Amino acid sequence: MDVISVIRTKRDKGELSPEQIDWVIDAYTRGEVADEQMSALAMAILLNGMNRVEIARWTAAMINSGERMNFAQLSRPTADKHSTGGVGDKITLPLAPLVAACGAAVPQLSGRGLGHTGGTLDKLESIPGWRALLSNEEMLSVLESTGAVICAAGDGLAPADKKLYALRDVTGTVEAIPLIASSIMSKKIAEGTGSLVLDVKVGSGAFMKNIEDARELAATMVGLGTDHGVRTVALLTDMTTPLGLTAGNALEVRESVEVLAGGGPKDVVDLTLALAREMLDAAGLKDADPAKALADGSAMDVWRRMIAAQGGDPDAALPVAREQHVVHASESGVLTTLDAYAVGVAAWRLGAGRARKEDQVQAGAGIELHAKPGDKVTAGQRLMTLHTDTPEKFEYALEALNGGVLTAPEGTEFTPNPIVLGRIA
Amino acid sequence: MDVISVIRTKRDKGELSPEQIDWVIDAYTRGEVADEQMSALAMAILLNGMNRVEIARWTAAMINSGERMNFAQLSRPTADKHSTGGVGDKITLPLAPLVAACGAAVPQLSGRGLGHTGGTLDKLESIPGWRALLSNEEMLSVLESTGAVICAAGDGLAPADKKLYALRDVTGTVEAIPLIASSIMSKKIAEGTGSLVLDVKVGSGAFMKNIEDARELAATMVGLGTDHGVRTVALLTDMTTPLGLTAGNALEVRESVEVLAGGGPKDVVDLTLALAREMLDAAGLKDADPAKALADGSAMDVWRRMIAAQGGDPDAALPVAREQHVVHASESGVLTTLDAYAVGVAAWRLGAGRARKEDQVQAGAGIELHAKPGDKVTAGQRLMTLHTDTPEKFEYALEALNGGVLTAPEGTEFTPNPIVLGRIA
Repeated sequence: MDVISVIRTKRDKGELSPEQIDWVIDAYTRGEVADEQMSALAMAILLNGMNRVEIARWTAAMINSGERMNFAQLSRPTADKHSTGGVGDKITLPLAPLVAACGAAVPQLSGRGLGHTGGTLDKLESIPGWRALLSNEEMLSVLESTGAVICAAGDGLAPADKKLYALRDVTGTVEAIPLIASSIMSKKIAEGTGSLVLDVKVGSGAFMKNIEDARELAATMVGLGTDHGVRTVALLTDMTTPLGLTAGNALEVRESVEVLAGGGPKDVVDLTLALAREMLDAAGLKDADPAKALADGSAMDVWRRMIAAQGGDPDAALPVAREQHVVHASESGVLTTLDAYAVGVAAWRLGAGRARKEDQVQAGAGIELHAKPGDKVTAGQRLMTLHTDTPEKFEYALEALNGGVLTAPEGTEFTPNPIVLGRIA
Repeated sequence: MDVISVIRTKRDKGELSPEQIDWVIDAYTRGEVADEQMSALAMAILLNGMNRVEIARWTAAMINSGERMNFAQLSRPTADKHSTGGVGDKITLPLAPLVAACGAAVPQLSGRGLGHTGGTLDKLESIPGWRALLSNEEMLSVLESTGAVICAAGDGLAPADKKLYALRDVTGTVEAIPLIASSIMSKKIAEGTGSLVLDVKVGSGAFMKNIEDARELAATMVGLGTDHGVRTVALLTDMTTPLGLTAGNALEVRESVEVLAGGGPKDVVDLTLALAREMLDAAGLKDADPAKALADGSAMDVWRRMIAAQGGDPDAALPVAREQHVVHASESGVLTTLDAYAVGVAAWRLGAGRARKEDQVQAGAGIELHAKPGDKVTAGQRLMTLHTDTPEKFEYALEALNGGVLTAPEGTEFTPNPIVLGRIA
């Protein structure tokens, strides 16, 4: 087997054989296939595609590159969720303790943010003392004792994906449905969850800009999960505007705690409950009532225990950015557009995100929204507040918002998108 | 400027701007753009193409990555030839001294073989004492004193191309017309020749398998040369069967000397004369008579002086491989196919070529042909002789010839391809 013949096969629009796929993933993991060879193959896959058989084999090869976890000894059924990433997407924070409060075990191996989308671990790290890095034993112990755990994925799970993901990130080969699907699903299947709910985001703030691509990605991932014995469901959800009223690490933790306390923005509550119901269904807990678990404080109890079990102080004050800048509405009317991508980039420029893996994020940086699409606004009212420790970045962040905030004349009929756009099972 | 946006532009079928091209070539040469990023871009260019404006800018950027030579101080007009590479293509060896004997200065910066096509420098290195590596001063001195020089291109010419060519070679991105054209022409233009004749090979033993691709490549290169003030002409020539009766280093030197002595196979003589006439025309020497210079020994005189000036002994015995294996005709009839690619791969497996840049070639290894397409053959007669120092490779070489040698029943009408298939100027 030689790598150039594998690259040529896909370059010339051929189908990769199972042997070619197994070999190239293994040889890349071992360093025998070089980064520059894998990136040429990734670009050929992005432009010429892979069929369902190839994607399934590619995913299996990535799973086989590392260890597999097993939650069979847990007393509860496991339920996991994965979001393809968006702006203001803090859903994992209220969702994991909520689903645990309803009787499932929720192991959430999460990532950090890169570019304009935030990362769950970055958000939780704004809680003083909280640790993302747990050993496998610690992880199982937190999961067993509290019902939920949110932590970094260990290096042992799908190392081929880890290496390939870092490569795709610097070679313009992220946006390939076969590679996105196999990347997500190899980690989730190796992690050993019994059921999985996928939140596939659609819109300017998501990888998938249109519903057709999102549907294809969702169907590909549901097929992969099902083929590997994981009960898998996908919701297609709106990402044309940020989720909730905050984008930024500590800002989003505060909003998540509001949801757990029975309040919070309607879109965040609705999506949290929709995903919770899917997770509980998939885990076989059809009689659970997540709305009740939010209302009666049992979800909040799990949250507090989960944060504390990972060294965090659930009562500690959250970090606040040193400087604020308020953006006011320039005219009265109906807010029609608050573009997710524009807000995401602005929050990132304020310090909420990182440009390179090794960068630090600012815990307090980000954007608070005071209005959402569909709201009436009056000239001069507050539209949003920008937060940062580096006020020299205000102008750069405001540039990103240019054209991303649009108002229609008063009286214009405007119906915001529903939060859930579709379901694939 | 960032490399991912450049990659994305081409990935998404956009046109690269002049600024993007200048920046990416310069940054790659300096090592700021990594190999894995350039290989992703090369694959995107291979699959999505570049238009004429992009190719011209890409070529100019590669020329600007290094030094430019200048032959203006020479007393004779300069004429250069480049072949896109084939099996048994020893034409440079008789051609350079022949054209010099007719009054032009012929600076032939040549390469080594890789894969199934041979390299001019490997062939000449089978002459005891001959040196491929000359300083710029030595090169000019040999050129001034003998009229011709064949040597390795210095590191200073188009370093971007040098780096990119090595990368393409290991990433399955060699076969892209824009990249082939800009690679060849950047070196030739930087070299400073006044005129250039391109020998674009077509057929199984060439990069270009069909005449349409060859025509596109030729037209692209002629356009690039003309735009840079180099009088450029291309001949499209047949490479469905090896040139002449030998493929292998010392074997081809011996055949070249036969041509210079007034003998040699007709196809080699015809192509040498056709290219010589084009070079002399392009150099403004329209009255020169290359057939006479072959017949009267003046081309041979230049050859002997040129070889001696680079340390070689033109009278030394050439290396002979330790072992021979004769292939006989299994049936009588007309030889219709002697596939160039099959013979090239077989010669390579016998030791005439290298798999990796750092490999050594065997001077004596290769294949001698005793019949060519169109010849009548009788069952049991010698078809070819395989030469190698590593006889354990005979079987592996014979495998490559499987299906590459075909005979039709006696009396079948068969006309071999003409050697020159077309001309583009």
